[in-house]
Amino acid sequence: MRKHIPDATVARLPVYLRCLAIRTGTGTGTCSSRDLARTAGVNAAQVRKDLSFVDARGVRGVGYDVDDLRLQIRKALGLTHEFPIVIVGAGNLGRALANYGGFDEWGFSVAAIVDVDARKVGSRIGGTIIESMDDLESIVTDHGIEIGIIATPSTQAQIVGERLAGAGVRSVLNFAPTVISVDGVEVRRVDLSTELQILAYHLQERET
Amino acid sequence: MRKHIPDATVARLPVYLRCLAIRTGTGTGTCSSRDLARTAGVNAAQVRKDLSFVDARGVRGVGYDVDDLRLQIRKALGLTHEFPIVIVGAGNLGRALANYGGFDEWGFSVAAIVDVDARKVGSRIGGTIIESMDDLESIVTDHGIEIGIIATPSTQAQIVGERLAGAGVRSVLNFAPTVISVDGVEVRRVDLSTELQILAYHLQERET
Repeated sequence: MRKHIPDATVARLPVYLRCLAIRTGTGTGTCSSRDLARTAGVNAAQVRKDLSFVDARGVRGVGYDVDDLRLQIRKALGLTHEFPIVIVGAGNLGRALANYGGFDEWGFSVAAIVDVDARKVGSRIGGTIIESMDDLESIVTDHGIEIGIIATPSTQAQIVGERLAGAGVRSVLNFAPTVISVDGVEVRRVDLSTELQILAYHLQERET
Repeated sequence: MRKHIPDATVARLPVYLRCLAIRTGTGTGTCSSRDLARTAGVNAAQVRKDLSFVDARGVRGVGYDVDDLRLQIRKALGLTHEFPIVIVGAGNLGRALANYGGFDEWGFSVAAIVDVDARKVGSRIGGTIIESMDDLESIVTDHGIEIGIIATPSTQAQIVGERLAGAGVRSVLNFAPTVISVDGVEVRRVDLSTELQILAYHLQERET
């Protein structure tokens, strides 16, 4: 049986995964709770508490085995099966997301891309053909899609969120720089400026 | 004199700002530490501790004034002047970032976009003309750019990071799904799949 994981821990586990993915790239076999703490902006005790929700076996003075910890976190987050997603909006952002190489690793696959512009429908982005927004409902049903990504202009985001909800999508990631709220659907917003703000702070601190 | 703010707090302040920006949109005038805690995935005591580094004046039982708190956080993060940025890569992601409406509010302005592809040079994205990667060094100097954004394919990210560092850029935001490391430069990586991972967890939990 899976344990219930507190929201704050759920929000940090992907950050640990990102940190571990970096380690995998460098060939380092182990990772300490201090390393993870630094990346996630918490203390080492918090990391150990978070990882108590995961079947992670750390060794005192050595740390965690990187590959094993990645596997255990992915299991705890339920990232062991495929999640088909639909991207709404085939503009620059939608195209960038469709081509983004970072989704596959976590089991997210772009099942469909839709757009309201009839001139775009039928053309390809990577391996996926752009379909009409008119067909959203049948696309969601046919592919069993539960997650939608909004990559439209801000003015369309709320309407698109409602269309996605009506089609049966239960989780929405909103990239449009605006706030939307849809009944019965979990909406998370991605603010591309957050990391820039952190950089700007460090930059100014180095200057003073 | 500005206080030194711990890294973990610096990482959370932009999250509070995002939460406050949402509040501003809804016309709600106040915000409690509990509200902020829920969004940032920490407890209310942590929020109050974080906000002790900011000149925020909360009122017991009422909360913080949204507009005042935004201003104080922006001041603490040093987001009160303009940060010209250069985007390297005028593909879909670079174009999407150049057109992204969420940067201006925090004082980030796209001073230049560069690309290696001579066929792209001279065309416009929004109000900005794409320039040649060959001119990176003079562009950085002319505009006084300290922050660079990498929006190239993964294979080019490390080389671009080094070129940016050589040109005098001191902070780099890497959107390519790969890890890079450049001496003397702070690099932060944006992983567009992090929020998807959180959504996927909640989705599976609702199912079980």
